[in-house]
Parts: sequence; structure tokens; C-alpha cells
Amino acid sequence: MKDVAQRAGVSIATVSFLLNNTKPVTAATRARVEQAMAELGYSRNMVARALASRRTHIIAMAYPALEHRFGMSTAEFFTSAAEAARKEDYHLVLWPVGNDGVELRELLGQGLVDGVVLMEVQLDDPRVDVLQQAGTPFALIGRTTELEGLSHVDIDFDTTVEDAVKYLYDYGHRELALISGDLDDPRFHAYGPWVRTEDAYRRVAASYGMSVVILPCSDTTQAGKAAAERLLAEHPETTAILVLNEYAALGVVSGLKRGGLDIPGDVSVLALLMVPENAAMADPELTMMRTPGPELGQLGTESLIRELEGDDPLPPQLVAAKLLPGATVAAPRGT
Amino acid sequence: MKDVAQRAGVSIATVSFLLNNTKPVTAATRARVEQAMAELGYSRNMVARALASRRTHIIAMAYPALEHRFGMSTAEFFTSAAEAARKEDYHLVLWPVGNDGVELRELLGQGLVDGVVLMEVQLDDPRVDVLQQAGTPFALIGRTTELEGLSHVDIDFDTTVEDAVKYLYDYGHRELALISGDLDDPRFHAYGPWVRTEDAYRRVAASYGMSVVILPCSDTTQAGKAAAERLLAEHPETTAILVLNEYAALGVVSGLKRGGLDIPGDVSVLALLMVPENAAMADPELTMMRTPGPELGQLGTESLIRELEGDDPLPPQLVAAKLLPGATVAAPRGT
Repeated sequence: MKDVAQRAGVSIATVSFLLNNTKPVTAATRARVEQAMAELGYSRNMVARALASRRTHIIAMAYPALEHRFGMSTAEFFTSAAEAARKEDYHLVLWPVGNDGVELRELLGQGLVDGVVLMEVQLDDPRVDVLQQAGTPFALIGRTTELEGLSHVDIDFDTTVEDAVKYLYDYGHRELALISGDLDDPRFHAYGPWVRTEDAYRRVAASYGMSVVILPCSDTTQAGKAAAERLLAEHPETTAILVLNEYAALGVVSGLKRGGLDIPGDVSVLALLMVPENAAMADPELTMMRTPGPELGQLGTESLIRELEGDDPLPPQLVAAKLLPGATVAAPRGT
Repeated sequence: MKDVAQRAGVSIATVSFLLNNTKPVTAATRARVEQAMAELGYSRNMVARALASRRTHIIAMAYPALEHRFGMSTAEFFTSAAEAARKEDYHLVLWPVGNDGVELRELLGQGLVDGVVLMEVQLDDPRVDVLQQAGTPFALIGRTTELEGLSHVDIDFDTTVEDAVKYLYDYGHRELALISGDLDDPRFHAYGPWVRTEDAYRRVAASYGMSVVILPCSDTTQAGKAAAERLLAEHPETTAILVLNEYAALGVVSGLKRGGLDIPGDVSVLALLMVPENAAMADPELTMMRTPGPELGQLGTESLIRELEGDDPLPPQLVAAKLLPGATVAAPRGT
């Protein structure tokens, strides 16, 4: 910091403002400081990190709790991350900051945490820019489209969808439908898990020569019930339904039963991303691809802590959801 | 700080260690500092607060996420608290710290937050002592047994249970049972909501001249199913069931149906503390006393922020859960 300030002919405070984005700095000053860093062979992150010499041993999980529902799956990611942090002698706290990065920038400016685990990642996520500008180490649970240099873990949506479709296909199902997320909702149009699942489903269904039926649906039981009714009306030929979101899946089961259908006698249901506790609430108990929340919460946190401790980085990891049989899938009638 | 240190003949650092509990101080020194404060007319909190001159405008919700499940109700408390904080230009963060106060003390020692909202309060809660020792302003969502001087909001369990029992009684039910929490679980033996609900139920049932049947049950759907089976075997005369915990309630509905009973034809079910989203997952949809999470999250946070801003304190408030009719209560058969 001192070296950079001296070489650039500015105060240490100015270097700090620039690196932490805490006060505006003129373009000319910025150029001088950046040239000084380059001449000294320092990266922006190195200097910013050295600047934050006061280590707190606290890491934050940034979760947009007011935009995304904080359901049972989220709780799994959060508690497994908190446990992983505790094992390494760190505290994990939860920051319910918005998707746009504004609150995240305000909190980072206070130097409260050593690093951040980012949840509910969008394909192009402004929070990533905020973290990079602040020089704060971070790990993604999720993926942006541009991943270069970013430490991340995520669900392997391709394999998850492939395994799910194959499971239904092997039972004899040929008329499938996906009750997906609602990508028209502006909060979710670039939400990685929904975009990637739909893309994977289009590809996989086509590869099996099956027609592609996709219905958008928010993640609530009410929306799931409505989607089930719509599906029965518009695609009565459907013999098996994949449901992306877990509360929607519970609603779909309920909606189908109210529509007079027997599950799995008349129609099979497979939840694509689900936790056992929620699957057990459905009657019959849902067959599901089990969300690898405990693994990913742990891996994302470990990956961040390794970076903080200067250990070798963990390689990026994709973890597929595993099939957990319940009682909502059977062979289609007449087979 | 300086005045106190001078008068006590110790360093400012010693006063700081003592007030923040960051380093041990001898009994003699402690006595000298406390006498100096008393002579100057300073309370411990005043000095500690003046000491923490760096206001962060961040408040923490302390929630024991690894001991208590973080379900839909908790999410309501949390998000409404986060919204209330945001309105007042504060950030709310979640600290998943244990019930014993050890982690809470560690985090408080870093001076990260202006105040704390405490959740899942025990009748005698070590975290209250930690907060008082640290001189950190706090508000309880919940109640200890000793409340003097503590800012708190809570559910009015007495009124909630009275209203629930009256509702069933007015339908004609005389053989009731409460599926309660599991107070034998050491994590919960002094957990306010469970203790207070059971106490209220014993009192109210007796006042109606009804026999008191109480079954302990953890808050999971699996435990709820098992409790329903046990109740059918041990108390087949039961015509209406109150269930304290929400995931247990979903399991009870499921368990009764698997036992061949019609709800509400054969037996009525009333969830005592529940959120609509979970009630909608049951089939038929649960009749419930709706947990006032949105109100309490907001009130607890406002109450803390008023203290931080030096405004007049809010009086302690108890809010009863309100009855929301669903489809699981009817008159007992043959009436």
C-alpha cells in the first residue's frame, strides 16, 4: 500500500478509496495508481487483500432472501456451509442482500468479512463485479456464463436431467412434460439453475425423440396446483411429469389428485431438485432427484477457506442430484 | 472511557477489556473500574456503547440454525426483520450461532454490529448474559423467565391456546389431544414456546373439564406420522388433535390418513403454529393458528433500532396467533 502510494504520488488513503471503492477517485488518479501497481508487479487483489490486514475469520454467505424464497433446500446449503466453516475455525454469517449488488457493496465496504460465498448466481451477476472490485475473495455456489478464474461449485444440471429422463424412459414413458421455473419473471430470467435445467431438458428430450412440453411455474404449492390443472387440460396425453422446483412439485401432486388422477397409476411425478423432508410431505411420497445441498454448501465454503488460507485451490466441481425412489413413479397404464 | 480510566487509575485498554470481555481482568481492577463508573454516574452499557463509537448500521439476528430447524416460519421472521431493518437504513445479517453463547461472544468481540435480535429464546438463556456483558443492545423475539429491563416481543401462547381450544370445543369436541414438542430433548427442555404452550394447554383443558392428553413429538413429518399412530393406538377416543409444530402437523395429517381415518370426518386437526404455505401442503388444507412471524420479526427489529437511535422504547408486546380456517376441522361424528 505504502509503496504503491509513494510511487503514484498519492496518499495511502487515496489508494484505499480506489481499491475499496469507498470514495470516487478521478480517472487521472486511478490511472497513476494502477500504473504504480503494475510497475511494482502487484495485482489489484493482492494489494486490496494486503490492505485488509485485519482478518476477522468471518465469511458471509450472500443470499438474496427477499427475492428468492428461503426454503428447506436453502436451509441445507446454509447449515452445511456453517458447519464446514465452524470446522475450519471460521464463522459463517448470512447476508440477505439483493441481487443487484448494491447492498453487498455497502456491507463489503465495512471490512467485516474475510470472504464471501455467493448463492443463487445469475448467468451475468453484478455481485461478481462488486466482489472483484472490492478485492474480496469469494466462491460461487452456482455459475456465471463467464467463469474464467472464478472459484465455483454447482449442480450438474445436464447429468441430473439426463438421469431423470432416462429413469422415466426406462419405465416406458414417452409422453413427458417439464413443469419448469418461470423465466418470464424478471427476477429469474437469467437465473442459472432454471435456464440450465430447461436447456438440458430440451436437449435430452430431443435426443430421445420425444416432444418437448414445458410449462413455466413459480416455486409455490399454489402455482404447482395451477400448473397441474393447465397441463391436464392442454396435454392430457402426458404420462410422466418432471417438476423443477420443490414447492411447485408438492402443489403438482396435490393438483393432480384434486383433478381425479391417481399417482402413479395415471401419471408419474418426478421432482428434479428436492430435499427428502419436503418429498416426505407429499402423499404418495415423491420420487426425486435429491439436491446436493449438503455437499455444495460444504464444498463452496471449503473452497473459499482454502483460498483465504493460501492453500491449493479446489478445482471447480459439478455435483449431480441423485435419484431417490419414492412412490410417485410407475410404468404408464397399459404397458 | 478516558474519565473512567483516569478515575480508576487504569489504562483505557483495561477498561475496554473489561467492558468487552475481551481479556480477563483481576477482581480488584474490576472493582476499581466499576466504582469509578458508579461515581461518575455511568452505567456499564453507556460506557460500553460510547466505546463502540464506530457505528456499523448493521444488526444481527442470532438464530441457532444448527440446533433448530430453519423452516418456513423462521424464514418469515428473518425476511420480515430484514425488510424492517432496510426501511430504517440498517442491514440485518443472520448469525447461526449456538444456544450456549460461545460463538455469539466471539462474534460480538469483533464490534461488527450495533445490536442483536435474539431468536429461539430459552427460559434461562446464556446468550442474554453474553449480550449484557458485551454491552451490546439487543431485543428478544421470545422471552426468558426473568424479563426485567429486557426489550422483547413474543407470541401470546396463552391466548393462542385458549382460542384454539375454544374453537374445537364450540364445534362439539370434548376428547382432545395435544401433540406437543419433545421437551425431553436436551436442546429443547427449556425452549420457551414449547414450555409455554404445554403449560397453557394443561390449564385451558382443565378449565373446560377435559382430560389432558399430551404426546411429545419432534418437529419433523416422520415424527408426526409416528405420533399419529401412537395416538390412535393409545387414545382412540380422541376426536380432535392440536399439533404444536408445523412439520409434525403435516406428518400427523399424513399418518392419520394412512391409518385409514378421514379428516375431518373421523378426527379434526388444528395446527397451533403454522404458516399458510405449509398449511397448503396438507391434504386437506390445514386449519391453523397462523404464526405471527411477519409481525414479530418487524416489531423485534423496530424495537432494537429505536433503542439504537435513542428513540422512546416500544413496550413489550405479545401477539396471539390468529385462526385461519382450512378444511381439517368439523363437528365430531354423531353430533
